[in-house]
Amino acid sequence: MVDKKRILSGMRPTGALHLGNYLGALANWVEMQETYDCFFFVADWHALTSDYENPADMGQYVREILLDWLSAGLDPEKCTLFVQSKIPEHAELFLILSMITPVPWLERNPTYKDQIVQLQNKDLSTFGFLGYPVLQAADIIMYKAQGVPVGVDQVPHVEITREIARRFNHLYGPVFPEPDAILTRTPKILGLDRRKMSKSYGNAIYLSDSPEAIRTKVMQMVTDPQRMRRSDPGNPDVCNVFEFHKLYTDPAATATIHKQCRGAEIGCVECKKIMAENLIKGLAPIHERRRYYLERPDLVDQIVAEGNTKARRVAQQTMQEVRAAIKIDY
Amino acid sequence: MVDKKRILSGMRPTGALHLGNYLGALANWVEMQETYDCFFFVADWHALTSDYENPADMGQYVREILLDWLSAGLDPEKCTLFVQSKIPEHAELFLILSMITPVPWLERNPTYKDQIVQLQNKDLSTFGFLGYPVLQAADIIMYKAQGVPVGVDQVPHVEITREIARRFNHLYGPVFPEPDAILTRTPKILGLDRRKMSKSYGNAIYLSDSPEAIRTKVMQMVTDPQRMRRSDPGNPDVCNVFEFHKLYTDPAATATIHKQCRGAEIGCVECKKIMAENLIKGLAPIHERRRYYLERPDLVDQIVAEGNTKARRVAQQTMQEVRAAIKIDY
Ligand code: SF4
Ligand code: SF4
Repeated sequence: MVDKKRILSGMRPTGALHLGNYLGALANWVEMQETYDCFFFVADWHALTSDYENPADMGQYVREILLDWLSAGLDPEKCTLFVQSKIPEHAELFLILSMITPVPWLERNPTYKDQIVQLQNKDLSTFGFLGYPVLQAADIIMYKAQGVPVGVDQVPHVEITREIARRFNHLYGPVFPEPDAILTRTPKILGLDRRKMSKSYGNAIYLSDSPEAIRTKVMQMVTDPQRMRRSDPGNPDVCNVFEFHKLYTDPAATATIHKQCRGAEIGCVECKKIMAENLIKGLAPIHERRRYYLERPDLVDQIVAEGNTKARRVAQQTMQEVRAAIKIDY
Repeated sequence: MVDKKRILSGMRPTGALHLGNYLGALANWVEMQETYDCFFFVADWHALTSDYENPADMGQYVREILLDWLSAGLDPEKCTLFVQSKIPEHAELFLILSMITPVPWLERNPTYKDQIVQLQNKDLSTFGFLGYPVLQAADIIMYKAQGVPVGVDQVPHVEITREIARRFNHLYGPVFPEPDAILTRTPKILGLDRRKMSKSYGNAIYLSDSPEAIRTKVMQMVTDPQRMRRSDPGNPDVCNVFEFHKLYTDPAATATIHKQCRGAEIGCVECKKIMAENLIKGLAPIHERRRYYLERPDLVDQIVAEGNTKARRVAQQTMQEVRAAIKIDY
């Protein structure tokens, strides 16, 4: 334990997780819990930044995401799972880091600029949304994380966390390590309609989908758009169904399908049926764990209560050091 | 107690309080504790917004200001004295209010604009400084204060607090009353050099100044600048020394001095000597209480510990209501 590098990551609770979330983050977490000292948190306060006008299901979403995490294979014996809003020290460190973070650092954040443009239907120009990277920095450095697993587009977030940590250390003394970005694989799979898989597009396959639901959804999937008829040769390299095969069908069978598709020896319907069954098989351990935890709601409560306690102990220790460094105690 | 209107006010701990602070705020507080349910707090987190580069004496400043408050006559039997950073709920409410406060509300805050211009030597364009009114709103509505004592120039602060409270209530349900600004007297006295009395100008008379120090400082005071010689008639209505007489010398003697000054029957040296003795007499109860509390540091600790406990109980109750309203609990 002592020699393990500590990493930290979080997810906003915004409803059931889909395969995109799983492959893009959760599957990496499940791997990382074997080699790192992992802290994973439900970012419920963060979810308020963009959903503050409709937080009606936050508590429900928190329970759902914890169930998804455990189903996906996060093991509370190996990693610490906790809920951000249960660790009030995050708010305190957010407040203190606020005081040392120049506004221009936040305004030039590319995600801030992007999201303001993308989500124009929401009133996002709030102070909290502008300060999103400050809260994120607080989340990360609270646990003195040395690494943060991110996709390549999130590297600027880690950079601003490093800048804030550096500024704190410069002003008040060396309290925080500067965390490194740990680049993780991001999935190439798309939604049923070939757009990015997203809850809001209604094109997602969820970890909690039943085998029946998965079969139905797979049959709706858009394949190689150039392949009009069964007799046309297809191009698996541009086909989303084939991306799923690469992940869930064994390599030999995948190679065969590649060849058969190019030779018009297999139809998309048959190809999808094979993929659906392999996908269902691949997700079986997840479905099994889901059933296990669904039958034991008290166990889930206990796991997160223990995670919260462990995280809070670390956070309280860090905040003692912070208060001593800024000499705010009397 | 039940029928008393609750008010809340705070001061940044930035060193010993001077007569300007006393007459402009503290003297009003001492009066108000008789008729209101008063919560007064040391705004140490606020002090970080502008002094984050030099917080070396924060803990010391907190102790000093508490001693000044008690010396001035704030009575822990009548009001609740507490330290902001000891009530972490303020940080949590700050975070939550951040999410619903539009940035433009903060940018148009006149104090923000003013201070950015005034304090150009400090790097004030921080996220925390921009969010100063959000933290202030959290401080106030946390205790469901119905009133906030302010000088006329601070009315916009209370207005933004009212707007934030209204927005929260609109989005999540009626949790917070909108506090009223309670306009208080502000003193006309100036510093020794006739500029605004201010620690940074080195022209202040402190509550903690000894009688000897007061005598010396009063003798340095600039009087009517038009009165060059003892034989010139003076104009007490433009004389800062006379403003002190109006506050600390009895009305009959004050009227006499007014006449004698106009008739060149009294010299400024003599006039100041009279004023200095009356000022020292006026401050005697404050000096006496200071001695009392200086000899009893444990009592001061106990008073603030009890105040913190009482404030925290209210804050925890409020935050329960807040979390229920925003449905963040699971
Ligand atoms: S046969 Fe399979 S890989 Fe080829 S286009 Fe159809 S679904 Fe895609
Ligand atoms: S005599 Fe007194 S009131 Fe008149 S100018 Fe001098 S100090 Fe001021």
